[in-house]
Amino acid sequence: MAVMTVELGERSYPIYVGAGLLQQPELLRRHIRASEVMLVTNEVVAPLYLERVVSALPEYDLSIATLPDGERQKNSEQLNKLYDEMLEKPCSRQTTVIALGGGVVGDIAGFAAASYQRGIDCIQIPTTLLAQVDSAVGGKTAINHPRGKNMIGAFHQPRCVIADTDTLATLNQRELSAGFAEVVKYAVIGDVEFFSWLEQHVDDIVSGVPDTMEEVILASCRHKARFVAGDERETRERALLNLGHTFGHAIESIAGYGQWLHGEAVAVGIVMAADMSRQLGWMSSEEVRRIGELLTRAHLPISLGGGFSTDTFLRQMMMDKKVMNGRIQLVLPETIGRARLVMDYPDQVLRDVLESYCSG
Amino acid sequence: MAVMTVELGERSYPIYVGAGLLQQPELLRRHIRASEVMLVTNEVVAPLYLERVVSALPEYDLSIATLPDGERQKNSEQLNKLYDEMLEKPCSRQTTVIALGGGVVGDIAGFAAASYQRGIDCIQIPTTLLAQVDSAVGGKTAINHPRGKNMIGAFHQPRCVIADTDTLATLNQRELSAGFAEVVKYAVIGDVEFFSWLEQHVDDIVSGVPDTMEEVILASCRHKARFVAGDERETRERALLNLGHTFGHAIESIAGYGQWLHGEAVAVGIVMAADMSRQLGWMSSEEVRRIGELLTRAHLPISLGGGFSTDTFLRQMMMDKKVMNGRIQLVLPETIGRARLVMDYPDQVLRDVLESYCSG
Repeated sequence: MAVMTVELGERSYPIYVGAGLLQQPELLRRHIRASEVMLVTNEVVAPLYLERVVSALPEYDLSIATLPDGERQKNSEQLNKLYDEMLEKPCSRQTTVIALGGGVVGDIAGFAAASYQRGIDCIQIPTTLLAQVDSAVGGKTAINHPRGKNMIGAFHQPRCVIADTDTLATLNQRELSAGFAEVVKYAVIGDVEFFSWLEQHVDDIVSGVPDTMEEVILASCRHKARFVAGDERETRERALLNLGHTFGHAIESIAGYGQWLHGEAVAVGIVMAADMSRQLGWMSSEEVRRIGELLTRAHLPISLGGGFSTDTFLRQMMMDKKVMNGRIQLVLPETIGRARLVMDYPDQVLRDVLESYCSG
Repeated sequence: MAVMTVELGERSYPIYVGAGLLQQPELLRRHIRASEVMLVTNEVVAPLYLERVVSALPEYDLSIATLPDGERQKNSEQLNKLYDEMLEKPCSRQTTVIALGGGVVGDIAGFAAASYQRGIDCIQIPTTLLAQVDSAVGGKTAINHPRGKNMIGAFHQPRCVIADTDTLATLNQRELSAGFAEVVKYAVIGDVEFFSWLEQHVDDIVSGVPDTMEEVILASCRHKARFVAGDERETRERALLNLGHTFGHAIESIAGYGQWLHGEAVAVGIVMAADMSRQLGWMSSEEVRRIGELLTRAHLPISLGGGFSTDTFLRQMMMDKKVMNGRIQLVLPETIGRARLVMDYPDQVLRDVLESYCSG
């Protein structure tokens, strides 16, 4: 097992990464303040891992809320049902929420914890690669709105993150690959050596070789923690973590939540950003090719397919949280290993990129 | 005009108190960061004061959301409608929400600002005495849940508070009195001299004499700001501000939101807390009498009337945010001017107090 810390002063917390962590109840218990626990999971994860967590907490006053599966369920209806269950019990302000599942469970349960009685403790136990390398770390919580992804939410840091790599064994190929897209993001924005390492190990990662998984999760969490520690509420450099996401969120929203996995949309978004960078004369064609090849080897899409029009895409991008004074702020790579937040690009370049990816 | 500051490091902000402040647009403008403004008000306040605020901001990209009036409307349905309007526009992360109205408008608009895109700026322009002396200051935002008051919310400090005492002129007697209950709270928990001053000036306050209003609002905000600065997220001494509120929230919930004004319920709650303190041997009967008399002179209730049973009341109190390990934490005055948070009272004393106030 490896342990690292997200450095945030009095809100600092550990991330535990390794195999068999769900069989180590003391990891969990040391971060639970009182006896009440509200465990939030979903219908897919529950049959696989719920029993392990429940049996780790025999002496706690434990309630379980099971959400339906999928990004389409990350909405106000499910959030309200969760509030209802918490008030039915009723959960007090000392309750710890445990989020056991992927990004959707972590985001809804995290926001419920952020807003229930104005904020109670939360522990993240991510069970997908995407959640382990990205969404469970850093305190971003949210639900989607029909008009835009992650539009309602809060920054609410967990008390700890427990990433048990054993849970990756039950992921299907599509989900493993989706998680890999966020890993590539860290390499492209901040670490060219990590990018090369990924090129060497991509096959092991997307087939889930245990030792490699621990290594890649730990490296990813280190990258994420560094950005979060430097800029918890995303006023500056944390925004670089959104590489591919303004394009990606538009893809998810237009296609309908759940049609694309978040990581798949981010993969195409990274390639679109790289392509735009190339058109601005920053990135070489060779670098863009390397990024596309790495994502393709991970079985990730690098093009949109049908059903997207340039105008719809642009309108949806205008809904993004990074819009400022009517302009879409974009994270664009300057080279593999360095990126920046860009406002002053020519509109036509963005339009050209969208046209080359959209069918209509 | 008087100005004071809520000291919270980088989240510090000014409170402006005085007559004619809505005619001083620069107060507002200096706290708005970008051009987008979402003004949230309600159907009662809009005809009275909306025009003044709108005309102060001619060059801004201003949208207006008008909520229905009343505590019953502080719910998830109204919150979701507000989100819809914000996304319809769409509001960006640079938008400033302005809450123009009483406690309900301030709480909903404040929570919308806290959670929209994980947090945007908010300015509070309270137009009721209750909001000017209490709810607009300190960053508590929330909506009610059918099972409990203020159960879903966030701590989200405003950029500034503008308390224009002219707006009190349109309040009816019942609302002025309700605001006074929170003023009495500050005196009972922390300032016996202020209590004496209130005894001398209660008639002027509840008839809204302008100079007295500025003085009482400023004194109240100073008390509140001191508690908030010392304990922003209510882990310790800020909890004393809940004197009368655990009883009061139960009254509001049981009667149905909107039947009692919040301040009316708090008035009875303060008397119940004082009575319990007397039964524990802390407060003298004379002090309890003085508190009751001050509230009565302000036309506030000090008894429940019919429709409350002890068991229902106790069950509802157990829903409160101050419940810890199954026990209701209570704020009880030790004397006029000093209170403390109490866990270790005999259950029978609480039950006796409830029985003496409830009819069944």
